[in-house]
Amino acid sequence: MRTQVAIIGSGPAGLLLGQLLGRAGIDTIILERATREHVLSRIRAGVLERGTVRLLEEAGVGERLHREGLVHTGVELAFDGDRLRLDLEDLTGGASVTVYGQTEVTRDLMEARERAGWLTVFEAQDVEIHDVETPRPSVSFTAQDGRRTLACDFVAACDGFHGIGRRTVPERVLRCFERVYPFGWLGLLTDAPPATHELVYANHARGFALLSMRSPTRSRYYVQVPLETRVEEWSDERFFTELRRRLPDAIADGLPTTPSIEKSVAPLRSFVAEPMRFGSLFLAGDAAHIVPPTGAKGLNLAAGDVHYLSNGLIEHYRERSDAGLDRYSERALARVWKAERFSWWMTSMLHRFPEMDAFAERMQRAEFDHVVSVRSAAANVADNYVGLPF
Amino acid sequence: MRTQVAIIGSGPAGLLLGQLLGRAGIDTIILERATREHVLSRIRAGVLERGTVRLLEEAGVGERLHREGLVHTGVELAFDGDRLRLDLEDLTGGASVTVYGQTEVTRDLMEARERAGWLTVFEAQDVEIHDVETPRPSVSFTAQDGRRTLACDFVAACDGFHGIGRRTVPERVLRCFERVYPFGWLGLLTDAPPATHELVYANHARGFALLSMRSPTRSRYYVQVPLETRVEEWSDERFFTELRRRLPDAIADGLPTTPSIEKSVAPLRSFVAEPMRFGSLFLAGDAAHIVPPTGAKGLNLAAGDVHYLSNGLIEHYRERSDAGLDRYSERALARVWKAERFSWWMTSMLHRFPEMDAFAERMQRAEFDHVVSVRSAAANVADNYVGLPF
Repeated sequence: MRTQVAIIGSGPAGLLLGQLLGRAGIDTIILERATREHVLSRIRAGVLERGTVRLLEEAGVGERLHREGLVHTGVELAFDGDRLRLDLEDLTGGASVTVYGQTEVTRDLMEARERAGWLTVFEAQDVEIHDVETPRPSVSFTAQDGRRTLACDFVAACDGFHGIGRRTVPERVLRCFERVYPFGWLGLLTDAPPATHELVYANHARGFALLSMRSPTRSRYYVQVPLETRVEEWSDERFFTELRRRLPDAIADGLPTTPSIEKSVAPLRSFVAEPMRFGSLFLAGDAAHIVPPTGAKGLNLAAGDVHYLSNGLIEHYRERSDAGLDRYSERALARVWKAERFSWWMTSMLHRFPEMDAFAERMQRAEFDHVVSVRSAAANVADNYVGLPF
Repeated sequence: MRTQVAIIGSGPAGLLLGQLLGRAGIDTIILERATREHVLSRIRAGVLERGTVRLLEEAGVGERLHREGLVHTGVELAFDGDRLRLDLEDLTGGASVTVYGQTEVTRDLMEARERAGWLTVFEAQDVEIHDVETPRPSVSFTAQDGRRTLACDFVAACDGFHGIGRRTVPERVLRCFERVYPFGWLGLLTDAPPATHELVYANHARGFALLSMRSPTRSRYYVQVPLETRVEEWSDERFFTELRRRLPDAIADGLPTTPSIEKSVAPLRSFVAEPMRFGSLFLAGDAAHIVPPTGAKGLNLAAGDVHYLSNGLIEHYRERSDAGLDRYSERALARVWKAERFSWWMTSMLHRFPEMDAFAERMQRAEFDHVVSVRSAAANVADNYVGLPF
């Protein structure tokens, strides 16, 4: 088997890269460890920055996104009982975000790839990456018919935090930065209209809460919980009771208990691996960096990586120039660290930390009051929330 | 003895309050523990926000300030070798700060008070505050001719962090918030023209450094040092060598070693006491709150307190309304916490902390890069640096 760019991972990063390259006439094969059904069943965030929306349009999958996605021109912050709506359009000079589930993004990209007839190998097991320090790398894997080798010019590892991509970079080269937060998010998905039209991020003495949604009929709610929390101990009734206690009354009063269709606890982590390139191997998305979900930057960061990487690869094949590829790691990381900063700030500002003293609590309140009363502070939160330019 | 408002402390807060009240026809007596000469020999910061400048004009001491003060329309941040000038005028829509030593502010206010013939009792020892829960409070003290009692309507404690004012508020009422930083500033004063026209705040792997000045011929430089540092171990030569190592080359190269006229180590502390009023007793300035010197908010916060307090007292005597006095604590604290936030942020962003891990170091760098590349971030730093409106 041979292709120009071997892509490992059929999540949104890998699929988007495949789509942008394919439309530029570059041949790709995607290797995916899981089944197609499993990939499409993953539940993830769904707040798309304007840059991500534009990139999906470029990839030819903007139609359903624009038809079904919810354009949000504002987002709400709450602190104990107090509320602040950030008018994103006003504060940024016209920008907004689009709520569209990551599952839907994945589905649109997968279907577009299938229509184009570009190959994805599902259930590719035991993937190994070879010879990335040479111009003739390859990827081997176990398919249903046995061990196979895929020869290629480049390998794009879009295979997530636990993937083989980052582990292929030698330890002497790789530098990792990490922060693990001392709490998790208990999330509940329910087929009920969202309690609010826009997202609400709430800091409360009992802990953080988030009202989010996937569509006009599907809501996604979260509460901060201790890391050792077991989902089985949280009935839907208990979840909603806790959620209401953390929200401003006017919102809590209108929030009924509705049955969950999914419930899970996720840890929160900040992580960056540098560099994002090693020879012919490029890391993109969660393979190179993780943000805590506060601020919804994960998918958008992956899109940013794919933007730089696809441009670099297209430049390589069209113009025989490696300038873009040579700058990939540096450019992607510059954007990554800004989003890491914002996600870390949002997380630090909105959650109750076990080790917080009274001064730290007041600093959180002061951050909120500052955003409430100083326009440049609100504008800066808005700029970061809608996404910094590529 | 009797007066309308007894002011404890003849620093800039007490003197400014006395001046604003005196010009409104309200009688004050200031009690000061130290001698006049000692008060005038204290060396403190000297970056005045525009609001502070306006208040000093209102107090009738704007003339020399405008003649000798240095108007700064910019301030510089540095990170390792990289530099960023914040154009304060451009970012804030016209605001600037004025560099004018706190010693000069104190001298101007003291001389104006003396010209007006309003009494200051120097070397007033063992001050005690009485009956502030009644409308007839008093202050007793030991003067050169023995124990005296000053009857008054109100007591304004402008007597600093270690003063009697805050200690007079019962423990059941007072709530304190504190953060002590794990390092200090070694400061050196020298009669030499400043190395740069504007202030330079530098984060460097070896620790924080600051280039500041008091006048066109007097410079004030600082380096972050461990708390246990002894001044005697730092010759001028050692100080300047260390300072240069922490500055961008282009600045360090032009910085000669010049003899110190003062050298000292100051700890860094964030502190807020709430409330700032107890009965007839009002706390203002360092008596109620301390900021670390990063960002130069200390004197400006005191000015803000005095603005609210003088307005409240004038309203009381002129309009027989206590509305302003009743809101004093709340209004002052709202502003205090914003400046505490900014000073804490500046301190956190610019210093190397002993406990910092690699992720925390990168977050500092990301903060710097964010301010460099996102205009609303730079605008927000500028807004806070020139001072939020009263």
